[in-house]
Amino acid sequence: DILERPEGLELGGDLRRVTIMMADIRGFTTISERLAPAQVVTLINRYLGAMTDIIMAHQGTIDEFIGDAILAVFGAPQHRDDDADRAVRCALAMQQAMEEINQRNREDGLPEISTGIALNTGDVIAGNIGSERRSKYGFVGHPMNVTSRIEDVTAGGEILIAGSTLESLQREYRVGQSRELNVKGIDELLQVYPLLGEQS
Amino acid sequence: DILERPEGLELGGDLRRVTIMMADIRGFTTISERLAPAQVVTLINRYLGAMTDIIMAHQGTIDEFIGDAILAVFGAPQHRDDDADRAVRCALAMQQAMEEINQRNREDGLPEISTGIALNTGDVIAGNIGSERRSKYGFVGHPMNVTSRIEDVTAGGEILIAGSTLESLQREYRVGQSRELNVKGIDELLQVYPLLGEQS
Repeated sequence: DILERPEGLELGGDLRRVTIMMADIRGFTTISERLAPAQVVTLINRYLGAMTDIIMAHQGTIDEFIGDAILAVFGAPQHRDDDADRAVRCALAMQQAMEEINQRNREDGLPEISTGIALNTGDVIAGNIGSERRSKYGFVGHPMNVTSRIEDVTAGGEILIAGSTLESLQREYRVGQSRELNVKGIDELLQVYPLLGEQS
Repeated sequence: DILERPEGLELGGDLRRVTIMMADIRGFTTISERLAPAQVVTLINRYLGAMTDIIMAHQGTIDEFIGDAILAVFGAPQHRDDDADRAVRCALAMQQAMEEINQRNREDGLPEISTGIALNTGDVIAGNIGSERRSKYGFVGHPMNVTSRIEDVTAGGEILIAGSTLESLQREYRVGQSRELNVKGIDELLQVYPLLGEQS
């Protein structure tokens, strides 16, 4: 039964070099506690709608929405030489779009929000993850966990990129002073850089 | 355009009392680094396939697979008075199923794995989360974050349940000595209990 057992499901799994993006609204749970459920869903969907359009315009693959968090990758299923560059330009466009989102929020009496975006580049296993009843194109590997760790320390309005992403860029961008992160499972400290903009 | 703008998408959002389950394979990233990509996908899909069947048999709603992690809720979209009880019995069945999974892994020369399962009960906002291009029935709220925090400290083979879940149970179960957890955003320490089995 080909439909029930797509060939890729059990045998699939490729090692792919991707730039991983994780973004979430800072303090969203606390914000959401002061609002009615319908307002929370309006707020979150306005944000996710705008971010989805920008990620797709930059040929990113959205893996998941997890509450208000977004997990996306650049480089799978389709590798392109400018995967890291598109991820970086996408993150800059996402931060820029927050201004319009907050203007609409103010007009509707909703609170202003800010997002933190983390980027990291590395080799992950990509494949159809799940069961016969429910599967999705998903990603597994250490670089996913590292991205999550970077995201944990990213402030609202900020883009933090790992050294691995910085080294993968073809064009030049302005970055701030590096910070060091302790990541479980890695012996050395991880270097991360605030991304400030495109090189003018 | 009704199809493109389902009514629930912008206006939806209900407060629902649910029991949240998070499960993941302990140390899976480290395990996966020693294996070929196809083996990793076989291992993860064997696990997720067995867990999905058990969660569905207990009328749980699977929200996400995130790598090897599973996020599921009991109580939405459909509330039932025994939501917490079914979540607990589901977790016990999941741990029991690990034995057969590991026997198959041994037969295939794959490593043995163990899973940690966290349960927490609380009020969350449930609704169609996402964008017009991509939306899903999802959940937002503080109890989601608390469950993730409990999951962080759950050992392989263990089921840790929050006091909120323990208080919601209709039947009696055996639990071990309580532990205290510090959770960001909560002033008091959170009490969690190792679930040992059904009351004999």
